[in-house]
Amino acid sequence: MSPQDNYLATPSGLFFEDFTLDQELVHGVPRTITEGDSSLYVALTGSRFALNCAETVARAAGFYRTPVDNLLVFHIAFGKTVNDISLNAVANLGYAEVLFKTPVFAGDTLEVTSKVIGLKENSDGKTGIVYVHSVATNQYHQKVLCFKRWVMVHKKQGEVHLDTPIIPKMQAVIDNDEQLVPKNLDLKLWKEHYSDHQIKADDLNPGDILFHRDGITLNDSDHSMATRLYQNNARVHFDQHLMDNTAAGKRLVYGGHIISLCRALSYNGLGNGLWLGAIHGGTHANPSYAGDTIYCQSKILDVKQFNRRDDIALVRIQSLGIKNSMPDELPYLMREENGRKRYHDNLVLDLDYSVLMRR
Amino acid sequence: MSPQDNYLATPSGLFFEDFTLDQELVHGVPRTITEGDSSLYVALTGSRFALNCAETVARAAGFYRTPVDNLLVFHIAFGKTVNDISLNAVANLGYAEVLFKTPVFAGDTLEVTSKVIGLKENSDGKTGIVYVHSVATNQYHQKVLCFKRWVMVHKKQGEVHLDTPIIPKMQAVIDNDEQLVPKNLDLKLWKEHYSDHQIKADDLNPGDILFHRDGITLNDSDHSMATRLYQNNARVHFDQHLMDNTAAGKRLVYGGHIISLCRALSYNGLGNGLWLGAIHGGTHANPSYAGDTIYCQSKILDVKQFNRRDDIALVRIQSLGIKNSMPDELPYLMREENGRKRYHDNLVLDLDYSVLMRR
Amino acid sequence: MSPQDNYLATPSGLFFEDFTLDQELVHGVPRTITEGDSSLYVALTGSRFALNCAETVARAAGFYRTPVDNLLVFHIAFGKTVNDISLNAVANLGYAEVLFKTPVFAGDTLEVTSKVIGLKENSDGKTGIVYVHSVATNQYHQKVLCFKRWVMVHKKQGEVHLDTPIIPKMQAVIDNDEQLVPKNLDLKLWKEHYSDHQIKADDLNPGDILFHRDGITLNDSDHSMATRLYQNNARVHFDQHLMDNTAAGKRLVYGGHIISLCRALSYNGLGNGLWLGAIHGGTHANPSYAGDTIYCQSKILDVKQFNRRDDIALVRIQSLGIKNSMPDELPYLMREENGRKRYHDNLVLDLDYSVLMRR
Repeated sequence: MSPQDNYLATPSGLFFEDFTLDQELVHGVPRTITEGDSSLYVALTGSRFALNCAETVARAAGFYRTPVDNLLVFHIAFGKTVNDISLNAVANLGYAEVLFKTPVFAGDTLEVTSKVIGLKENSDGKTGIVYVHSVATNQYHQKVLCFKRWVMVHKKQGEVHLDTPIIPKMQAVIDNDEQLVPKNLDLKLWKEHYSDHQIKADDLNPGDILFHRDGITLNDSDHSMATRLYQNNARVHFDQHLMDNTAAGKRLVYGGHIISLCRALSYNGLGNGLWLGAIHGGTHANPSYAGDTIYCQSKILDVKQFNRRDDIALVRIQSLGIKNSMPDELPYLMREENGRKRYHDNLVLDLDYSVLMRR
Repeated sequence: MSPQDNYLATPSGLFFEDFTLDQELVHGVPRTITEGDSSLYVALTGSRFALNCAETVARAAGFYRTPVDNLLVFHIAFGKTVNDISLNAVANLGYAEVLFKTPVFAGDTLEVTSKVIGLKENSDGKTGIVYVHSVATNQYHQKVLCFKRWVMVHKKQGEVHLDTPIIPKMQAVIDNDEQLVPKNLDLKLWKEHYSDHQIKADDLNPGDILFHRDGITLNDSDHSMATRLYQNNARVHFDQHLMDNTAAGKRLVYGGHIISLCRALSYNGLGNGLWLGAIHGGTHANPSYAGDTIYCQSKILDVKQFNRRDDIALVRIQSLGIKNSMPDELPYLMREENGRKRYHDNLVLDLDYSVLMRR
Repeated sequence: MSPQDNYLATPSGLFFEDFTLDQELVHGVPRTITEGDSSLYVALTGSRFALNCAETVARAAGFYRTPVDNLLVFHIAFGKTVNDISLNAVANLGYAEVLFKTPVFAGDTLEVTSKVIGLKENSDGKTGIVYVHSVATNQYHQKVLCFKRWVMVHKKQGEVHLDTPIIPKMQAVIDNDEQLVPKNLDLKLWKEHYSDHQIKADDLNPGDILFHRDGITLNDSDHSMATRLYQNNARVHFDQHLMDNTAAGKRLVYGGHIISLCRALSYNGLGNGLWLGAIHGGTHANPSYAGDTIYCQSKILDVKQFNRRDDIALVRIQSLGIKNSMPDELPYLMREENGRKRYHDNLVLDLDYSVLMRR
């Protein structure tokens, strides 16, 4: 750096003071999803849901071709929001009302817009919470995916900014069942072996618990490849030199990768849960790092019929991601402590979502 | 786990007692192979055989488009069988009569069925050997690939099950040459540089040995990505928490990945061995783990003319995979000991196969 | 190895004595680039330039479909030359006149030819420098990419070979601006958000410096997957057993991977630098290994108008790749020492190139 050097500022993301209520952010880097992305998704997560794996199966189920895995769609849409919303995030606090509205096929191009729907300063004076509603659309301007999320974001200065917090209302559960079912989905021609002859919605009851047996160990290369594929540029996932100065000293695994691993693991037992229709809420209870082995256990929250159809039912599931222990190796997964939910240190994900399942 | 919890069983694969002679298993998760899968195959193995890399080359060789690498087809077909056949396997004991019958192109969808052709209890009372014949078909119901394999599988109980072992006959070598040559394959227009001006079938004689020079070091991320791409869900490849309790303490590399690496390494010297037509037999002599460097040496077993054609010959090859040593760094690769073949601890693969090679 | 074994030689690349002036080398393994390759490129590098990411954007910019990233084209073309030119290289000394002449689209097939344009023996008697001009063409025999490079190559014997060194002329800068602009490129319909509302060419002045903030840590699996994807078979990138005997004891990262990382990192700040038109020169100042974190800082060398067009300008940039330190953590990046440029040990890349940038 010599005296005559003229340093230009490079984008550093928005800070809490940069957000205003109803602000609209049109995110960068539109993205065409390809078969290459889907192959990588399988290679990185091990997902095996048949509807996303074979054109013959997709056609038998009413699609004209293989739909892209909804979680791949979610990660790519989420990735687009990071550069504006969460580059200066301390933490992703939660998701709600994640709704997959239109199937995505290879060749579709996604763009994402977010609107600020809430703002709240924290008492520490250094951070605030930003609530956004993000919408991904395809090249036909159809809404593909909507979701709300809230993140704790650094302030630039630490000065007071807002008098009254604005906290948006969020539905605990998306309960308009019509929204969850793709128009053409039809499982009447589904063959038993497509999904390994597994149990169906009619075999499930609220309260049933399934431990999905398989475990998957995270490698730095896997999770950082996945996160780069999603063009999510949060530095904590990639930059070890930066992370050397943190308490953990390691690159943080993108929480969405854990969601994908848990969904992929749930194939063992819930392989007939073919279509992820909505995520009602999600919490990354603890961080994950390379070397951690992820297991998943699911609890059936609800089984609902839909329009008297005898091919599909709506099943609401709570999936828990657990690291480095099978559930029976831990004294508890979560428990009440002074009226608050407390997660075991090895519990990494608490996800509440609905799938369409064969009856 | 609270008293009212209702744990449902999740699929745990078949045990020795679950198999019966002539039983037919229709495996799950049909799979459309895409160009994305082929790109990943190149990135994971380093394969360079020109017929699988370029549409111009494939057309010059009589195909209407680029055929998918036969080993990628094999791994995807094999992967489908794991969930039923070998989830409780102690070891994959061998392969025979692996025959590639119809070329596969991007867009083709594979389904796989296996038939139990043999069963044998082991004297330890805890395991048995299951012999299966697997057939992969495409969306036109054409047979794409057939193979036999035998695996040692755990018993559930350890009780006696079978009176008489049934051991199927298996051909040592697929000797119907017609079966090995794709109908349209024609190498008359092949250009020397396509395959780096390398030696041709007419330059080879039985007994010739080629050391393929290059080495490739295994990373955990590579082999587990490959194995997930193939949707092979054997836990030993992915779950470090599980493997912590084994003697080696490491995730086991899928044996098929070693086959692919050896085939890719053999390009150096045998780059004109364009079409892998059949695998006559294969043994995973020792396990491989991340950090191991794989080398390959091949011996020409046989060179045969086919139908008086002057563009191709059939070459039978024995390729040996060796870890962490070049062949001349070892006192022996395999030797006779008390009348039995004994492999050096660093020898990981002994593969007997036929390729179609330019004359 | 028994007495009757007949070892055949396998290809070992060319040595200095094998090269002659004007020699033409037609490289092996033609390659069709697919959408799968582009997905992998994003996953391995984190690149986000919108023109290469979305069909809607590419069409708005005058292309009939999404062009393949020029650096992916470069790596695949470069990879094809390795087997002949640089398998016995001590070091890649430099590049010049790298010019992207025709856009590449998924489905295009590349072949590469190189001509020897210079030869120079080194005084050590053991090595020499080979200068080559490589040309990649597509299936329509259009020139896609031309580049010159020079490498230090081992001699077979160490005997004297050449009387007079022949050192080709090379342009310091490709200055025919017509060559840098794809015929149909038109940024009049470009939308601000495509490239995250970043600065444009008119905001830049020679001497401006931008530090691109993000860092990316190399994993062995990432760089070796990238290098295998490019079918670059230089052993130093893959073979740990071989590298155990080197001073560093580690697999060397392919220098081109560092170029791609720096270009991808430069999106932060130079996201409107949509089309990489030429690389005027490049030096790999120091090696990189797994575990290193790469940062990038760029200096604007020149901003030029082109044909009075008000949508694009030509911007010449010097990007420096730096490992394990942000630029302000180092006392200097490069400096003059006794009249020679001396790089800091943490500086890994010095790249001089031109991009087409929005005005």
